[in-house]
Amino acid sequence: MSAPVAGPVLIVGSGLLGTSVGLALRRAGVDVFLSDTDERVLTEAVARGAGEEWAEGVVVSLVVVAVPPTSAGAVMAAATTHEDATITDVTSVKSATLETARSLGADANRLVGGHPMAGRETSGPGAARHDLFDDRPWVITPLPESDPDRVQQVVDLAMTCGAVPFLMDPQEHDRAVALTSHAPQVISSLLAARLLDADDQSVSVSGQGLRDMTRIAESDPGLWQEILAANADSVADVLDAFALDLHGVVEDLRGGEGRVVEQTLARGNAGRDRVPGKHGDAATAYDVVTAIVKDEPGELASLFVAAGKLGVNLEDVRIDHVLGRPSGLIELSVRPDVSERLRVGLAELGFDVRA
Amino acid sequence: MSAPVAGPVLIVGSGLLGTSVGLALRRAGVDVFLSDTDERVLTEAVARGAGEEWAEGVVVSLVVVAVPPTSAGAVMAAATTHEDATITDVTSVKSATLETARSLGADANRLVGGHPMAGRETSGPGAARHDLFDDRPWVITPLPESDPDRVQQVVDLAMTCGAVPFLMDPQEHDRAVALTSHAPQVISSLLAARLLDADDQSVSVSGQGLRDMTRIAESDPGLWQEILAANADSVADVLDAFALDLHGVVEDLRGGEGRVVEQTLARGNAGRDRVPGKHGDAATAYDVVTAIVKDEPGELASLFVAAGKLGVNLEDVRIDHVLGRPSGLIELSVRPDVSERLRVGLAELGFDVRA
Repeated sequence: MSAPVAGPVLIVGSGLLGTSVGLALRRAGVDVFLSDTDERVLTEAVARGAGEEWAEGVVVSLVVVAVPPTSAGAVMAAATTHEDATITDVTSVKSATLETARSLGADANRLVGGHPMAGRETSGPGAARHDLFDDRPWVITPLPESDPDRVQQVVDLAMTCGAVPFLMDPQEHDRAVALTSHAPQVISSLLAARLLDADDQSVSVSGQGLRDMTRIAESDPGLWQEILAANADSVADVLDAFALDLHGVVEDLRGGEGRVVEQTLARGNAGRDRVPGKHGDAATAYDVVTAIVKDEPGELASLFVAAGKLGVNLEDVRIDHVLGRPSGLIELSVRPDVSERLRVGLAELGFDVRA
Repeated sequence: MSAPVAGPVLIVGSGLLGTSVGLALRRAGVDVFLSDTDERVLTEAVARGAGEEWAEGVVVSLVVVAVPPTSAGAVMAAATTHEDATITDVTSVKSATLETARSLGADANRLVGGHPMAGRETSGPGAARHDLFDDRPWVITPLPESDPDRVQQVVDLAMTCGAVPFLMDPQEHDRAVALTSHAPQVISSLLAARLLDADDQSVSVSGQGLRDMTRIAESDPGLWQEILAANADSVADVLDAFALDLHGVVEDLRGGEGRVVEQTLARGNAGRDRVPGKHGDAATAYDVVTAIVKDEPGELASLFVAAGKLGVNLEDVRIDHVLGRPSGLIELSVRPDVSERLRVGLAELGFDVRA
């Protein structure tokens, strides 16, 4: 790893992300100061070892704004009082945040947007982790005016926190997350909302596909409304394009010859191949080995122990559910070069391995 | 279990589903005869022990039509030559199939539609399993004219195969699967297809949400075009309602006050709560215990062994992925009454359990 980011670093906002940045930087020996409008939260973050409480007059080299999206721009602008410090943030929408900071008089030369793609459903300094950003993408969005040395400083921040830096311009970032995160959130919520009109028996016949597609519909409405509002145009653009495609499919279903439907399904195959972590490239195209286990404590463990003894690392595990309970059908994703060893080995050990 | 279904049973079509029905019925001692237009497939099904080859003149009490959706109706009609036999099928669309059979002269009194909600991505008699239907829903769709004794015979068929029978009328079934299976397939494919226009870097920042939402976009286009064509009106109805909701969200994003967006997110929460197997009711609302393990063979196993030793049954497992590889973050879903025991027990055993 390269040298740690040049400090001292001031983190404004000591919630999950701010405190996690502090813990990650402290792990690397960087001097960290913390602030928060909530004294109780700040005390907890300091107690967790994320840094010292900031005091008037302490000079810092980098300010990390870790407050909610709606106030991030204003807090970045206010941070320009830290003379000559680079100012970055950790919110999930970049254009609106940076534009707000600029419109409130922040010097664009010192502004560099940031978006670590990490975080959990939990919040607060108590949920923070020093390894929250390890191996995660951390998108860095300079403005055209951003000083290259300051951009490098934010790259160093990301790497010191264990993350993998991705440089994008703010609009490109916002379009990317609109496509890969924000529009899917809306679509999942809309699909789940459709279930409210259905009777119990209709919903009872649903399977894993619907479960997968509605998982993120569990997200917090308040937080997501803020995110969607801050990236409204990019999200609306993706949804408009989606709606146009959808209209074509419905027309084809109502009276066409099925060509649009077939093309959509084929294009869906191709699009799915681009999703990283699944069939995205040779290195990550896993084989699936399927086995049946009894639905009892320890049964799953014995299968996993067997895989470990066979020297096979499990990349992913899926437990099939029927009628609201596990069916005992387990899908183990493994690298293709070890799938046959796992399949044969498990069968030899007496496991019920499917063809 | 009740008495096995009254046989002999003729299964027309010896693919994955037909052969699996045969294996399940033979397991219960029912006399089974098989036929298939492909002699090679038929031979393999017989060799697997799914039944005997049917010969002209053999009298059967029940005919199970297990051919693809496009020909199922015609094959059901042709099966009326088996005098006095009840005729059912196993396709995923019911109204169109039964209407075709009736329009070709089949006696509606003897027709009872069926849809076992099982199946795998694989096909052919070699992939068949005697336990394919165990604990699975098997939807049974009588016509108004169906003889109640024949409906009972198909209920017995489902139960003999280990499945859980659900009685619905054909239109109700088709609307239910349009909502819970067919429309989600279209939506997943459309969302995945949107990724084709994006550049590599944009797609590289996607996470688990997009992966979940595009998983079923991997489905076979040919098969799904048939299914969607056979249930086109019901699917189009669901998609029209979805499109209307979507339009409202886009309008709100473009210039509204965010009320429609907020309401959609909240309705999504409520709809998600109705999905069986996840938070659907008290019996299946699991707690999630999160732990970190090293990405090495045996590490996952040691966690599962520990859970087994603590007497805790794992209802579901999720392995988090970042940048196309596992992150070591494991989410274990367990019944709420044992989650604290698991959390404390794992921590005591030295596992890195998250708050």
